[in-house]
Amino acid sequence: MIEPDERTKIYSTLDTRFEDFVTILSDYLRVPTISAHGAKFQEGAEATKKVLEAIGADVRLVPEEGGPPVVIGEVEEDPTLPWVILYNHYDVQPVDPLDEWRSDPFDPVIRDGKLYARGAADTKGNTVAQALAVQAIRDVAGRLPVNVRFFVDGEEESGSPHLLPFAEDHPDLFRGLGATIEAAAHTREGKPSLSLGSKGILSVELEVRTSAVDQHSSLATVIPNAAWRLIAALRSLRSERGRILIDGFLDGVPPPDPGMLRYLRRNTADPIAYKEDYGAREIYGGKTRYARIKQATYGTTCTIDGIWSGYTGAGHKTVNPAVAHAKLDFRLLPGQRPDAIFDLLVAHLRTKGFSDVKVEKHSVFEPAASAISERLPQAILAATREVYGTEPNVFPWSYGSSTTWYFTRMGTPAPHPPGVGYQGSRAHAPNEQIRLDDARRAMKVAAGMLMALEHS
Amino acid sequence: MIEPDERTKIYSTLDTRFEDFVTILSDYLRVPTISAHGAKFQEGAEATKKVLEAIGADVRLVPEEGGPPVVIGEVEEDPTLPWVILYNHYDVQPVDPLDEWRSDPFDPVIRDGKLYARGAADTKGNTVAQALAVQAIRDVAGRLPVNVRFFVDGEEESGSPHLLPFAEDHPDLFRGLGATIEAAAHTREGKPSLSLGSKGILSVELEVRTSAVDQHSSLATVIPNAAWRLIAALRSLRSERGRILIDGFLDGVPPPDPGMLRYLRRNTADPIAYKEDYGAREIYGGKTRYARIKQATYGTTCTIDGIWSGYTGAGHKTVNPAVAHAKLDFRLLPGQRPDAIFDLLVAHLRTKGFSDVKVEKHSVFEPAASAISERLPQAILAATREVYGTEPNVFPWSYGSSTTWYFTRMGTPAPHPPGVGYQGSRAHAPNEQIRLDDARRAMKVAAGMLMALEHS
Repeated sequence: MIEPDERTKIYSTLDTRFEDFVTILSDYLRVPTISAHGAKFQEGAEATKKVLEAIGADVRLVPEEGGPPVVIGEVEEDPTLPWVILYNHYDVQPVDPLDEWRSDPFDPVIRDGKLYARGAADTKGNTVAQALAVQAIRDVAGRLPVNVRFFVDGEEESGSPHLLPFAEDHPDLFRGLGATIEAAAHTREGKPSLSLGSKGILSVELEVRTSAVDQHSSLATVIPNAAWRLIAALRSLRSERGRILIDGFLDGVPPPDPGMLRYLRRNTADPIAYKEDYGAREIYGGKTRYARIKQATYGTTCTIDGIWSGYTGAGHKTVNPAVAHAKLDFRLLPGQRPDAIFDLLVAHLRTKGFSDVKVEKHSVFEPAASAISERLPQAILAATREVYGTEPNVFPWSYGSSTTWYFTRMGTPAPHPPGVGYQGSRAHAPNEQIRLDDARRAMKVAAGMLMALEHS
Repeated sequence: MIEPDERTKIYSTLDTRFEDFVTILSDYLRVPTISAHGAKFQEGAEATKKVLEAIGADVRLVPEEGGPPVVIGEVEEDPTLPWVILYNHYDVQPVDPLDEWRSDPFDPVIRDGKLYARGAADTKGNTVAQALAVQAIRDVAGRLPVNVRFFVDGEEESGSPHLLPFAEDHPDLFRGLGATIEAAAHTREGKPSLSLGSKGILSVELEVRTSAVDQHSSLATVIPNAAWRLIAALRSLRSERGRILIDGFLDGVPPPDPGMLRYLRRNTADPIAYKEDYGAREIYGGKTRYARIKQATYGTTCTIDGIWSGYTGAGHKTVNPAVAHAKLDFRLLPGQRPDAIFDLLVAHLRTKGFSDVKVEKHSVFEPAASAISERLPQAILAATREVYGTEPNVFPWSYGSSTTWYFTRMGTPAPHPPGVGYQGSRAHAPNEQIRLDDARRAMKVAAGMLMALEHS
């Protein structure tokens, strides 16, 4: 039993040790673990091990067939206690365009109460915050109220392509009372968020070839143009207003849960903020905050991530291109399966007369969400109330995708708790940043969550 | 008066000197005068001067404001004789994709009776063939039956953007009994062609921006995607079957001339050959040769020369792109004016709700055609009969665009005579080539044409 005065002391200890957070995190961020580059993995895994061993975890690097090692750091207080898993990753997004960074992405600096570096928000900051929370509880109360397993992935930013076979080899690592998956961002105003899962994603590449080689564009009267052909195929997939036209696309998606809609009504986040964040010309969804957040939450997408064909250099070349490409991603809701959507996509193209359009699957993340009534989400709500004096913004799932499903498929509820980042963290863009005030409170929420699980 | 035995000797001299053609042309082709790169112009002009001075022409490099010099090489036999203008250009198309070339584009090689190099067909080969024809007539008969002006442009492949002010400064250079404009290609079977003009072209670049910076694609539910927006605008311009949907687009285009349709019926060229030439999957126009050649001749186009947006590198990046671009060209018929079409395009986008799509004019060539009854086309017909023993394939205009209009606007008929290239020359593609047998006969047609103009 953690006593009330111990609780208070745990929180004040975290305040006192906040300098440690900055120091430990800065060292960790200096290891440039860019996922797409396939390098620095061993160094990244060792740096993660160091962070976790410093708080007394029993750390091992578990090899992953074809991928970087998974870092497992366990604090087992008592074999009879339930396990809580804290999932993060040590790899980070690429840094290009580098010239848009105000400072070196791998040399963390603090400006105006914010710490800037690649990986600060996504998600090394969360690993360090949770590690210090665990340490503070043990230092003050002598023991944790649950067993804790840090699970630190090495290629989340590449879509964790080897995690499924890993999960089949090591099912017990994914089982527990619950798993926190990375973290959810604060609003600009500093309100924390709790997401109960995440959308899924299917990413694909389309290629269409209308001839063996490009021609002079004067022959376009009689020879098909690959770019026009690709555009015709793309237009068959999605209406002007964004509705996806693939038969059966939404099959299996239940109507929004009334309880969750009530949470969304109370939620203060507003996609209208993207107008300022990204200079967006327009925000879809409607005139009210509620309409916009419903659209962001329950909307599915077919996004053109990239398209290219023909001559794209300076000046002009009059060419009728032989080949055209597009990279697409589909954001999916619980009830949809990426592999099934891929099959529907292929069938759609064939049915609509586009069997000449080749489709290659790039990556998938399954959508997944947990019930808010589970112990872990309830512990997060309690901790947020205690630390912030308020409810968090609750989302049925995050807009992006994550490894949530690898845990929920094993029966482990896997929400995103409040973390160190905020809506302006630019997690996948130049000048990634966290606000130190957010980080300070995220550490306390992590501690509060573990304490709220006492007697689970 | 050129005597019959002199005619015979002129033709046999050209046969004897064919090795000179290969040597002189190869030296000329080694100068990499890529138009889009804006370099090597002076070197290209000097190389052209050398070719023309070698046959006794009086050569000057006439500066063109803002552009490369125009090379004028004159052989004035008698001030009372009419002038015939032989228009070509010393600039060439870019060479990318370089890895599809079987040999260095600027190191000419002969394989299987074909000479391969960038510019061999388009159009250095024609300049050299015509120069040697002029030289042979003078060497055998002592004099030319007309005055001849070589007019060698330096930026035709960039759309000759400075030629209109140049024409206004030097109107006399564009006046004559007629002007040959580059050349028309042989069929694969070796039948020569005569085109009485050329289509026009308007090339433009479209840009649409939906936000200031790219976003993570999970926000595509609520933030517009620039690539989808561009595609919507493009689809408003052209039907699936290729019809252009801009109001008033075909205004001013007369119905096909019955006399020309008769020529097209006799014409042996068949666009179906592009299936083999370019590996085209399909040829538009219809089931008969006549239907296909009518489509190629009287068809207008809106071609996507290039399109690009978002992430186009290796792997996948889940990004909702802020900006998208397309390069387009419109092939136009006599009766259409490129500048008017540009205005219609801008008005169309505004009317259809795409005023956010910016349009930049890249280049224009006016469409133009001459009457077959003029002296120069008739001389070409006579020479073709003499050299080939047959009529050429006659076209009202070439499928591509050219500088024809700069001459016809001064009252100078300006057809494309049979030249060194053929339907498989790949003028704007890798492995540009000419067949040596075609070149040998093109030289003779050039000589025969000049001889047929005696007493003009």
